[in-house]
Amino acid sequence: MDISTFSRHINSSRIEITDSFWKSKMELVRKEVIPYQYEALHDRVIGAEKSYSIENFIKAGEIVKKLKNGEEVPVFPTDKWYYTEENAPQGAFHGWVFQDSDVYKWIEAVGFSLINHPDKDLENKADDIINIVCNAQLPNGYLDTLFIINDREAVFSNLKDWHELYCFGHLAEAAVGYYNATRKRKLLDTACRFADLICDTFGSEKIKGYPGHEIAEMALVKLYEVTENAKYLETARFFIDERGKKPYYYDIVLGRETVNDNYHYNQAHCQPKLQFEAVGHAVRGVYLYSGMADIAKYCKDEELYIACRKLMENIITKKMYITGGIGSTVDGEAFSYDYDLPNDLAYSETCASIGLIFFARRMLEMNPDAEIADAVERALYNTVLSGMSLDGKSFFYVNPLEVLPEASHKDSRKRHIKTVRQKWFGCACCPPNLSRLISSVGEYAFTENDDIVYVHQYIGSRINTENADIEIISDYLNSGGVKIILNPKKSFTLALRIPSWCNKFSFSRKYEIRDGYAYFDIDKRIEINAEFDICVKMIKCSNKVRGNLDKVAVTRGPFVYCMEEIDNGKDLQMIKLHKNTKFTVCGDNIFADGLREKESETLYSEWQDAEFEDIAVKLIPYHKWANRGENEMSVYIRI
Amino acid sequence: MDISTFSRHINSSRIEITDSFWKSKMELVRKEVIPYQYEALHDRVIGAEKSYSIENFIKAGEIVKKLKNGEEVPVFPTDKWYYTEENAPQGAFHGWVFQDSDVYKWIEAVGFSLINHPDKDLENKADDIINIVCNAQLPNGYLDTLFIINDREAVFSNLKDWHELYCFGHLAEAAVGYYNATRKRKLLDTACRFADLICDTFGSEKIKGYPGHEIAEMALVKLYEVTENAKYLETARFFIDERGKKPYYYDIVLGRETVNDNYHYNQAHCQPKLQFEAVGHAVRGVYLYSGMADIAKYCKDEELYIACRKLMENIITKKMYITGGIGSTVDGEAFSYDYDLPNDLAYSETCASIGLIFFARRMLEMNPDAEIADAVERALYNTVLSGMSLDGKSFFYVNPLEVLPEASHKDSRKRHIKTVRQKWFGCACCPPNLSRLISSVGEYAFTENDDIVYVHQYIGSRINTENADIEIISDYLNSGGVKIILNPKKSFTLALRIPSWCNKFSFSRKYEIRDGYAYFDIDKRIEINAEFDICVKMIKCSNKVRGNLDKVAVTRGPFVYCMEEIDNGKDLQMIKLHKNTKFTVCGDNIFADGLREKESETLYSEWQDAEFEDIAVKLIPYHKWANRGENEMSVYIRI
Repeated sequence: MDISTFSRHINSSRIEITDSFWKSKMELVRKEVIPYQYEALHDRVIGAEKSYSIENFIKAGEIVKKLKNGEEVPVFPTDKWYYTEENAPQGAFHGWVFQDSDVYKWIEAVGFSLINHPDKDLENKADDIINIVCNAQLPNGYLDTLFIINDREAVFSNLKDWHELYCFGHLAEAAVGYYNATRKRKLLDTACRFADLICDTFGSEKIKGYPGHEIAEMALVKLYEVTENAKYLETARFFIDERGKKPYYYDIVLGRETVNDNYHYNQAHCQPKLQFEAVGHAVRGVYLYSGMADIAKYCKDEELYIACRKLMENIITKKMYITGGIGSTVDGEAFSYDYDLPNDLAYSETCASIGLIFFARRMLEMNPDAEIADAVERALYNTVLSGMSLDGKSFFYVNPLEVLPEASHKDSRKRHIKTVRQKWFGCACCPPNLSRLISSVGEYAFTENDDIVYVHQYIGSRINTENADIEIISDYLNSGGVKIILNPKKSFTLALRIPSWCNKFSFSRKYEIRDGYAYFDIDKRIEINAEFDICVKMIKCSNKVRGNLDKVAVTRGPFVYCMEEIDNGKDLQMIKLHKNTKFTVCGDNIFADGLREKESETLYSEWQDAEFEDIAVKLIPYHKWANRGENEMSVYIRI
Repeated sequence: MDISTFSRHINSSRIEITDSFWKSKMELVRKEVIPYQYEALHDRVIGAEKSYSIENFIKAGEIVKKLKNGEEVPVFPTDKWYYTEENAPQGAFHGWVFQDSDVYKWIEAVGFSLINHPDKDLENKADDIINIVCNAQLPNGYLDTLFIINDREAVFSNLKDWHELYCFGHLAEAAVGYYNATRKRKLLDTACRFADLICDTFGSEKIKGYPGHEIAEMALVKLYEVTENAKYLETARFFIDERGKKPYYYDIVLGRETVNDNYHYNQAHCQPKLQFEAVGHAVRGVYLYSGMADIAKYCKDEELYIACRKLMENIITKKMYITGGIGSTVDGEAFSYDYDLPNDLAYSETCASIGLIFFARRMLEMNPDAEIADAVERALYNTVLSGMSLDGKSFFYVNPLEVLPEASHKDSRKRHIKTVRQKWFGCACCPPNLSRLISSVGEYAFTENDDIVYVHQYIGSRINTENADIEIISDYLNSGGVKIILNPKKSFTLALRIPSWCNKFSFSRKYEIRDGYAYFDIDKRIEINAEFDICVKMIKCSNKVRGNLDKVAVTRGPFVYCMEEIDNGKDLQMIKLHKNTKFTVCGDNIFADGLREKESETLYSEWQDAEFEDIAVKLIPYHKWANRGENEMSVYIRI
């Protein structure tokens, strides 16, 4: 762990995205997703499930007012994960236990969007919501509408399953995001008051609990970064140190003996510094690992850093789809065992890939590693973008690599595999998570320290770093060409990642290669032209992955491609590529000369060479699948 | 439907099995399984879950005695599927709602075993159990220990989920089996009294209900065959006619409106005569279809016969594993959609293949069809036998075609895939079902009508048919050679099935081929020598089955073969066979020259031809897998 090379990411407020690809996605978020989500939070979308998000904050605000006035308020049970109008009385909390977090994620997305595109009207809307949120805070700083509305006595009574610390985490992230965008402190102060309460409540001499759904760890670090208040860092560190110690806190509060290592789902089966394999709920996992990396960095904790390295290595070498998807089983939305990456049963949640990007950014800050930056690219250009339709109006939680609509309709083992994207719904973690990630994509592209600026992702932009003003003009996704214009503020080194998919590349300046990055000494205003050979590739998956034997995935640059039924007919499994298939790139699409196997006549027959007919196979980028109605899809193709 | 050719199966009492293969299985059942199950029914197996089977009958007998004496007896709830000592008081019923059926299946197996091997001690034991069973019958004929012990008022109140008519079915089958073996009427009379009550209770002018778990239909037909009492046939027909009519009986009793066709699980979504696709719980399905075939035959119901044909065709052309396994999804232990036959997620319950054999026998009686007899052979020599360990001491419910122990331990989607056979347990439908099938295997091998004797399975035996005394000396499983010695009682026709796996065959007498059978005119004592070319074959599965593309299964005669880790090392998916692989048969085993792919170094890499090393692949018959400890197994091999 060489702390002299540690870098920091570049804040959105110092990046202007000019990239046509990403700018259009950001505009979609700004014009479609954020306004739609605003309506959804207010339960004004016709035909959509109610979210109760704003309604809960208003109810909680009224309770807080009554409590301040010494009025009596009712108590309702807090025994469910999901409260509907059928199972909870009118005055009680409604929605999911983590419903508050959707509001916070929306505010955070708005913050990033305001940086990219100032919008007074949107800012006013956000300020109004922030007022509603802040009014719901109890005088002691506590802020979670479920417990404020239903039962003030029950706060922090079930850290494992109720999501108070999770909601706090999103509150803090939103507060920091909005503060960075607007310099308005209101939400930040509210978050700090809640953080203060949490710091006063949890600790080695206090309650020895820790979050069931992680995020508070990295969120507290964000508060520390903004406020420089060391207690936030300390509490984050406490949560990570305490996690998984035996006897388990979760057992102690239940008065139960600790028998087995039975908290894998929550990554609480052992202490994080001893966790080397990614297990359990995938989103929780990568959120924890992000917090671990934060603590490793700020506390220079070598043990934690090594655990993070091993976890990252485990994910990207054994548990990640070619699309950057992680968490391959629907049961517990979880990581499965090594090399268990089924295409048609995949969970591969959009949020999990987003969390992987969070984790990766922190790892890249400690050690620029092209393999990790490659994983970010995989996730970003494939699973993350697949999470949203091209019109920004519908979303996937689950991102399979093979879809047969009949299976999704008839086979309950595949009921999580949706064949078309869904509109906003009550349990809506992924859409607002997508909004905030896309709106802040630059934060995952660049890092710098006092001497070096790293370009991990080639996203067209103008960046104000401490070493230089940098302009990136990127045709990376089309031709593989990137022009980098550097206006140094002092002598420094520029490090450009060499994508793993690229065998041939060239730079217009002298460079040295280390760990997958090309390093350039910069001492005056110059331009560097980079050319990455972005030819179509056939990628094979390890033969430890049983479903992908004798198959290939087609990629071009960062994009993984797929076949859809609408272009290639039914029964995509009948299609084969030649070993020396010729590919033709045509805009976004790729055409390949392939074969279609003649349909078998009987279920079982003596083996003989199959009959094939020549066909042209059309491939589209994976993230664009299911934008033309329900149909079969497959990433992997037989060879 | 040509009723002139209808035949009937040959009763066990007229068949002496001499076949060394089957005789050893029968001896295993007699010496190991039946005695072990006897102990299990009495809860005397140390370490095994209690079954409460005999205990319930004794309790019910005491209740019946008290009721006869006018004494008051307690009432307990009948609201569960499984009653344990934790959730049910001491005096109440314990075990599964269908617990009684295990006792009946044991009695039936004993009956068949006594035919094959008279055993006074065993017969005495069975008679004792029969006395206990008969003592538990209420004066009105009702006999189901759950309701007799817990709540006499609740009988027949939930036909869909509580298994009274299912238990009745097994009682009737046991009674017929035991009567055929011993000519003792006690259990038969008891079964008839219960059947009389059922006939008095259900009908078009009475209660219009029908069984939730089918079997009563075919069981009533068995009672009709023995007693010639037409009302049993009528009630069986009523159950089948009434099933699936709208509004659904199951909704009516709940006071609920019928909205959708929502009883697929129970095959009650529409009337059986309109069912053309096998759906729902697989065992229930084939038990219903068996009853449908019985009614089609005895009532000459063309419509029902056509439905049966279509159902059988659907199963054997689209829903059957190469091993004769059916019901490919664990969810509901059910049939999945067409061509959904995953190897590693298979359910393929032993009982379902047994039920398929029941259904097939009835279809063969109506129309000798070599394809159906082939399916019987597949099921019998593969999935059914796989259900029992070679020492007869442990059992599989679930018969997957690919097993990775790590997956079974770590992946909850595969938790039903056991890697080694289990000892007897409470919910023990498969082991006693196996006992009764193996002990009566001859009944599924031969049928005859007034002019023709059909040999569907070449099982060495001496058969007393109405047309001839026939001796079959079979080396079918080893060399493919069969000698048939015929002592005709009159001129008749012998029909020998030509197995579908056999391209080359010869007979020592003149024959004519129709529908997969070779027909011989027999008018004097002769021998026929049949030679079936039993070479090793590589079989491919339809390319509609996505998991088996570019793979083959190796078969020899009726046996499907598989690879095990103990012989071939870990990572069986790395193994490939050449297109022109040479096979060497060595006793039960087959050796093949094959290839092992070098393990990939990275998860994703640019495609290039894989590297292979030459290896010898060892294959064993599928039914023998998992007899040498836990290890990987695979039926399908890459080619």
